[in-house]
Amino acid sequence: MKITVLTLFPEMFEGFLNTSIIKRAIDKESVEIELVNFRDFTLDKHNHVDDTPCGGGQGMVIACQSVVDALESVKTENSYTIVMSPRGRTYNQKVAHEFSKHEHIIILCGHYEGFDERIMKYVDEEISIGDFILTGGELGAMVVSDSIIRLINGVIRNESHEDESFENGLLEYPQYTRPIDFRGDIVPEVLLSGHHENIRKWRLEKSLELTLERRPDLLENRSFSEEERKILEKLKK
Amino acid sequence: MKITVLTLFPEMFEGFLNTSIIKRAIDKESVEIELVNFRDFTLDKHNHVDDTPCGGGQGMVIACQSVVDALESVKTENSYTIVMSPRGRTYNQKVAHEFSKHEHIIILCGHYEGFDERIMKYVDEEISIGDFILTGGELGAMVVSDSIIRLINGVIRNESHEDESFENGLLEYPQYTRPIDFRGDIVPEVLLSGHHENIRKWRLEKSLELTLERRPDLLENRSFSEEERKILEKLKK
Repeated sequence: MKITVLTLFPEMFEGFLNTSIIKRAIDKESVEIELVNFRDFTLDKHNHVDDTPCGGGQGMVIACQSVVDALESVKTENSYTIVMSPRGRTYNQKVAHEFSKHEHIIILCGHYEGFDERIMKYVDEEISIGDFILTGGELGAMVVSDSIIRLINGVIRNESHEDESFENGLLEYPQYTRPIDFRGDIVPEVLLSGHHENIRKWRLEKSLELTLERRPDLLENRSFSEEERKILEKLKK
Repeated sequence: MKITVLTLFPEMFEGFLNTSIIKRAIDKESVEIELVNFRDFTLDKHNHVDDTPCGGGQGMVIACQSVVDALESVKTENSYTIVMSPRGRTYNQKVAHEFSKHEHIIILCGHYEGFDERIMKYVDEEISIGDFILTGGELGAMVVSDSIIRLINGVIRNESHEDESFENGLLEYPQYTRPIDFRGDIVPEVLLSGHHENIRKWRLEKSLELTLERRPDLLENRSFSEEERKILEKLKK
């Protein structure tokens, strides 16, 4: 898989590319990351990529030419192009799985007051990582890349995914490790029992309890096993 | 304002701290960013901060000691401590405003299978930037920091905020800049008219139209002006 990021700030990605799982995935050639500064494509003699908004208003808008030229220079017939934008489809684990199946993802990062709207005709989709405003699209591009790279076969062990939040539609159960007693706070007894079936049940119950309490919206479109249904009924009482 | 990040990967923040608005805010002393590696606080002779999960399962869990000791070394009575976690309250622009009023925010970043649950008693709140899984909390910490820093007085011009997505409960209207004709695609005429009132109306209509189409959920808890109500009625027809 290849991820191409179009950005005015490629240096912002250095720390990200050199960290643990991402670095290992790149070294193992599970993923190739390409950083392209679209400022290099501008035909403006002062190297400007932006201009004032038509109709007035604060800030600067990124103009079409450098972005579209950069995009066309990296696009192939197998590319899927997204642009980070607060107006886009909200990113989640399901979208991460969807994106992880593409051969080539291109991520376009904006800054200032955003892109000239006409650029949207050259991208497949606008994606938002959440309902907040950031100084640019770079952090969003790292979030999308990180979540996708984790899902590439072989990057992390498959079993590591199974119990994670969202993968089974529930929040993850609480985890504990040694010491058994930390400042008087003791690990729940069942986890020390060695009784696998009881541990499994306790974790499932905790997962359902946490999800019901904090994110009941996640339960709305999920189907439940007989066991899960019984636990939920008990919890709701 | 001060932001302290507790992380095993402080080097991951370098690119972020050196970028445009964030760097300027640090240079102007509008914000101080402190990076603390909690591995430096471990009493384990091999410098380990994690251990296997009680009750079995994949991966490693970050143990209490180094984290709690690091936390207590940086905490003051004015600190508000959050931990990045997929199980936390969903971050949004409203929470960003809330956080931007604190004198000192401490952000705890996990890795691997997460933290020993008993650590949660030492933090004020779990925060999630979205329903996706990342390799660690660092990108979330940058997202939270970035969105807060933008809101600190003087970091960017106040007028720049007003029309942004979410700030007025709507998605932002489309922006355009020169050239008027890009490969045959023309800037909407009204934006070239110089007629301020018509431009304002067009932008408001586009904002409402985009929000209704893409994020009707944002309209649910919002109150509307008479003008907005009329536009919405027209759009719904």
